Amino acid sequence: MRAAVYHGPHRVEIEDVPTPEPGPGEVAVDVAFNGICGTDLHEYYAGPIFVPTSPHPLTGRQAPLTMGHEFSGTVAAVGPGVDGWAVGDRVAVEPIHRCGQCPPCRAGNYNVCQRIGFHGLMSDGGMAERTVVPVHMLHRLPDSVSLELGALVEPMSVAYHAATLGEPPADGTALVFGAGPIGIGLWFALRGKGLENVYVVEPSADRRSAVEALGARTLDPTDVDVPAFVADATDGRGADAVYDAAGVRPAVETALACVGSRRPMVSVAIYETPLETPLLNLVMNESRIQGSLCYTAADYEAVIALMDAGTYDTTGWVEHIALEDVVTEGFDALHAGRKTKVLVDPTR
Amino acid sequence: MRAAVYHGPHRVEIEDVPTPEPGPGEVAVDVAFNGICGTDLHEYYAGPIFVPTSPHPLTGRQAPLTMGHEFSGTVAAVGPGVDGWAVGDRVAVEPIHRCGQCPPCRAGNYNVCQRIGFHGLMSDGGMAERTVVPVHMLHRLPDSVSLELGALVEPMSVAYHAATLGEPPADGTALVFGAGPIGIGLWFALRGKGLENVYVVEPSADRRSAVEALGARTLDPTDVDVPAFVADATDGRGADAVYDAAGVRPAVETALACVGSRRPMVSVAIYETPLETPLLNLVMNESRIQGSLCYTAADYEAVIALMDAGTYDTTGWVEHIALEDVVTEGFDALHAGRKTKVLVDPTR
Repeated sequence: MRAAVYHGPHRVEIEDVPTPEPGPGEVAVDVAFNGICGTDLHEYYAGPIFVPTSPHPLTGRQAPLTMGHEFSGTVAAVGPGVDGWAVGDRVAVEPIHRCGQCPPCRAGNYNVCQRIGFHGLMSDGGMAERTVVPVHMLHRLPDSVSLELGALVEPMSVAYHAATLGEPPADGTALVFGAGPIGIGLWFALRGKGLENVYVVEPSADRRSAVEALGARTLDPTDVDVPAFVADATDGRGADAVYDAAGVRPAVETALACVGSRRPMVSVAIYETPLETPLLNLVMNESRIQGSLCYTAADYEAVIALMDAGTYDTTGWVEHIALEDVVTEGFDALHAGRKTKVLVDPTR
Repeated sequence: MRAAVYHGPHRVEIEDVPTPEPGPGEVAVDVAFNGICGTDLHEYYAGPIFVPTSPHPLTGRQAPLTMGHEFSGTVAAVGPGVDGWAVGDRVAVEPIHRCGQCPPCRAGNYNVCQRIGFHGLMSDGGMAERTVVPVHMLHRLPDSVSLELGALVEPMSVAYHAATLGEPPADGTALVFGAGPIGIGLWFALRGKGLENVYVVEPSADRRSAVEALGARTLDPTDVDVPAFVADATDGRGADAVYDAAGVRPAVETALACVGSRRPMVSVAIYETPLETPLLNLVMNESRIQGSLCYTAADYEAVIALMDAGTYDTTGWVEHIALEDVVTEGFDALHAGRKTKVLVDPTR
């Protein structure tokens, strides 16, 4: 079968590889769509970062590896000892290998497992016609949820998890910095949690237009005094939750000037370097910065339920490409900012 | 009477001023001891910062003002309409003027009042033989609590409030960065909350010795790999709560490398500038930075109860000076790092 195999920076090849077979407790999935993540770009342009160069403690695998950790598909084969799953079942895959032993795992927070591994970074992933996963990674998609949406459950769960950590009241005001895929996912998640007053702060006119077309209210921080706007919109209370999905200093600075007293800024960004952060703002109103990483199964189920309820919409920000175009139409286009979200269709 | 009056940077004068009389709802307090705070140093060397140069919205006052917001004393006169207080009552004063109207005040968090004023920064304070305060500022000292300890209730409440925001379990591990008065107060507060495993991280040998003499375990970050030590001491869990009472980049960096997943670093420092902060650490283990400011009445009462129980000890870190020596033996000595905590005795 064909697969996009990561060999090292700037070296991802479309290759013929053996079709994998499910072992005990495993299921083979025919991949329908696999999204390209910012993490994949980091691996391609500046990696290996997550892809191991010596055997990973949980998977035993290292580069070269098939990429792809955001995917949906249909069950193609069921390994020994697997109950409750059958060929043809439509699934979204939650790609976390966890140790189950470390303090976070024992506390139920396997998203911060100290030996975490991702299927598609530490084992052969979804940028292929077929992939094999342990059964605990499967989440069933209802008929109402398309396989296109199914491939978005992973990034939407990243955003949903972060949205939840902000603990915004349904009648509160939330601010999302950045209208990339996670920012868009935050907007959907917050709307799904019942918030009416959500503003997306984004300097790019194209990205503002895209999220406005979904129904979002936006603010251009190069034009609007965002903290003054928020103070006015909240009778001086400040935002109930602020989300940084941009990961750059101006966003963090502005976000911390908008957050209400005793309320959080949730960080759901990959900060490439330490940023100059106005910690005094946190002290003066007892606000906080809360980190957010990945998701757990509960987030997957919540997102799938909201997709079933019609909350999510891919119009205008999601594009499909063929497997052979993953570098040119995928990595390069995303890296250059020409696209927002790309799903690889390995059947093409 | 004599008072230490702030006129501007490097201009604090010991002057004869009229003895104040209590109005309705007010009480006059003969000051026993008044501590010098880091905030006072900022005002003296780089102010005015908090001291208003136009009438303050709550107090109507501006410079020149009598300094001093950390003090104890005895009630000397009671104004009209005051019940429950009598001449001779021993008190610690909680020096917060609050508006009662803003969103934080309405939520009960008057320590982050949007129009907050401090007695001794926005009204004539405790570096004087006598001062007049509204009755809500009074906290009664039991006979077991000396007036010396009474003057320390304010900074110890700053630390106690921060200690509480860290939500450390009694069987957990806490780290305090900085062994100044707030760091020492954190150590006492955490011990008072029942924690056995508290480490004070401090590069100064003199400050380590002082806090060790109180019974604290210390770590020298110039000698010990603190994150490795903490990982080892907690079976890889990381600290349950970390406190930054140092306010400098190395402390913040090390603190964020020590905090456990989903646990807080509490910031209880005045950061003079934005610091380069490794926000990625927060993301990768879902930890947080929580700001802490001042205290409320509950913190005062908790600290006074712990003082009554014998938790606090002034040996080796608290010195007394006469009012006339406030600049030379107070501000200058503290600024140069020659002393840790100085109480001004206005009767001398």
